[in-house]
Amino acid sequence: MQTVENLSQETFDRCCQRLVNARPLVHCMTNDVVQEITADVLLAAGASPAMIIDEHESADFAAIADALLINVGTITEKRLCAMNLAIEAANKKSMPWVLDPVASGLLPWRDQQIAHFLSLRPTVVRGNASEILNLAGQGKGGHGVDSTDSSDDALQAAMALAKTRGIVVAVTGETDFVTDGEKVLSIAGGDVMSTLVVGTGCSLSALVAAFCACNDSALEASASALQMAKRASEMAAQQSKGPGSFHPAYLDALYQIAREHV
Amino acid sequence: MQTVENLSQETFDRCCQRLVNARPLVHCMTNDVVQEITADVLLAAGASPAMIIDEHESADFAAIADALLINVGTITEKRLCAMNLAIEAANKKSMPWVLDPVASGLLPWRDQQIAHFLSLRPTVVRGNASEILNLAGQGKGGHGVDSTDSSDDALQAAMALAKTRGIVVAVTGETDFVTDGEKVLSIAGGDVMSTLVVGTGCSLSALVAAFCACNDSALEASASALQMAKRASEMAAQQSKGPGSFHPAYLDALYQIAREHV
Amino acid sequence: MQTVENLSQETFDRCCQRLVNARPLVHCMTNDVVQEITADVLLAAGASPAMIIDEHESADFAAIADALLINVGTITEKRLCAMNLAIEAANKKSMPWVLDPVASGLLPWRDQQIAHFLSLRPTVVRGNASEILNLAGQGKGGHGVDSTDSSDDALQAAMALAKTRGIVVAVTGETDFVTDGEKVLSIAGGDVMSTLVVGTGCSLSALVAAFCACNDSALEASASALQMAKRASEMAAQQSKGPGSFHPAYLDALYQIAREHV
Repeated sequence: MQTVENLSQETFDRCCQRLVNARPLVHCMTNDVVQEITADVLLAAGASPAMIIDEHESADFAAIADALLINVGTITEKRLCAMNLAIEAANKKSMPWVLDPVASGLLPWRDQQIAHFLSLRPTVVRGNASEILNLAGQGKGGHGVDSTDSSDDALQAAMALAKTRGIVVAVTGETDFVTDGEKVLSIAGGDVMSTLVVGTGCSLSALVAAFCACNDSALEASASALQMAKRASEMAAQQSKGPGSFHPAYLDALYQIAREHV
Repeated sequence: MQTVENLSQETFDRCCQRLVNARPLVHCMTNDVVQEITADVLLAAGASPAMIIDEHESADFAAIADALLINVGTITEKRLCAMNLAIEAANKKSMPWVLDPVASGLLPWRDQQIAHFLSLRPTVVRGNASEILNLAGQGKGGHGVDSTDSSDDALQAAMALAKTRGIVVAVTGETDFVTDGEKVLSIAGGDVMSTLVVGTGCSLSALVAAFCACNDSALEASASALQMAKRASEMAAQQSKGPGSFHPAYLDALYQIAREHV
Repeated sequence: MQTVENLSQETFDRCCQRLVNARPLVHCMTNDVVQEITADVLLAAGASPAMIIDEHESADFAAIADALLINVGTITEKRLCAMNLAIEAANKKSMPWVLDPVASGLLPWRDQQIAHFLSLRPTVVRGNASEILNLAGQGKGGHGVDSTDSSDDALQAAMALAKTRGIVVAVTGETDFVTDGEKVLSIAGGDVMSTLVVGTGCSLSALVAAFCACNDSALEASASALQMAKRASEMAAQQSKGPGSFHPAYLDALYQIAREHV
């Protein structure tokens, strides 16, 4: 059985400092629902977001960006084409890119696209338990875009997926796990209120991309992004009365953590 | 003349309890402006939103959803095609769907699409007074997406529309009215600040869809959704200093009302 | 050398009063990321936003609107086509329109489109220093969508651009400048926190359009919009702990300034 380790405070601090100092440019190709929160999360955490979506310029922009996010939430044929061009540009210069396989396992056409993206070897796949179980061939589908499985149940699937594909897999939930197929880092904490604010998961994938842009270890970078989000969620939960006030408090908390690492 | 009744507290509580317990999956095909607030409103109120927009998968997703929202705010030809497929899937399994005829009466092409959707017999049409007057053939157009008529003035038009089409019509404004052409339920209250936050109307249509998913009477379900929004607006107005702080307070209030009905 | 003047309180008050009383209908054709904040800023400030994006109806809507915003943040071929039709309708009736040249200087295809829009003679171009320097042929490109130049450095370029094109140019940053090529108005103040909330710049271009709709002098109208935003930022900064709480506080402040001018 694998040994599950915690992310050290030292590694977290180092990864955060690098993010804040580098201010990486993150090319976000994400769904229509979470564009604003994704940009706001990156800005609060110290990164620089840009959403360039058209096939005429997605490769050009990927070529000058520091990391790329591919999120399939509201894909269309046009958007897929632009995403493929951006991924090609990213792979050409070995730039890290993150795949967020929203609702994997529910819809055949989408699953085809996700399988194709997976074959292009993302640096990291970040998903919920139902999504990761499905990618590992063990899925039974979530409740729409929400998971019906626990992250603990998906850990073995995440490890198998990481090993087979030679990538890092992050499965998030009550406890988050990040694995490269050998090592496993776990991140506890957070708050359930984050599940009632749309885009906390999707924007987390963008944050993973930002951290990967300025740290060589995608495992540690991803774990640091998840850790930052978990801590910000805890801080926000103490300041809020519901999901409405949680949202701005979460952004304030990310900003505060970033400021502590200048 | 019709008798206008109030929604009973008992019916409201029952409808809310069903929503919170069922956590219905609401397929939202809505405009680009209100995606986030629509998802956040559904999550706060206890439902589960998903925005699947492409023609390759809109019917597949409608087939597994519990209700469907069609909002024409930023329609394109591609989006219309995907909407038609989703409606077909919804009608096939007699799943409730709600039509939000944004800016009806202002633009010829849009009015053609709205007329077509109306002919497919939505469970509920939810609009402002100018929109509903126009659908009933008595319109003179609003001020952009805002109404220039009062909901009282649109009540007769709403009843005629409901009767002719065999649907439920909800006309919202200072006082909301819901009618099936025979009975009329009215919902008073709310706060004018909600008109200064984009998407409070559009997300209300999504909430109507969520309530319809778990209650047989579309009349009572719709009235309960409007009631929940009116009460949340009142609560939010007391907590806020302007439209900026009203938005998170409104989501917190919806969440609080939902929690009271677990 | 040019003389730089401040906007007088009297002119600001007059422009604000006209905005609040006229409640202009602003046709926003903007990017996918900032739709919500753009609508919310216009509503808070006393204007009426509508986002009509398709080529079947963009000209029809421009024909009934009071001002038009063209923002190229997430352009696609379809969207460009609809934008051109709207601009044609705007120019036909001499309605003011504002061009926001997001990320000008970074991507060849985008720069072609921006150059084309510029040739159609917008009433106002509103951009950051890197964008304006590029439009004046002196650019070296920004960091993604963010400026790497100061607005002071771009003032000469803004004046040259305004003079050559016969338009008003607003370059925003730590200090904002508005010029018609002869006169220069400067607006100081604001708060750096606004740079950590996505869409504060894009929504400012929409606000410029709203002010231009009800004031004959595009120079004074633009300066008043920038002044309103600067003051709202200062007020919001005092109420907030980070970019999360800044966002609602900024909208509340715009609303408060608008209320003072009823």
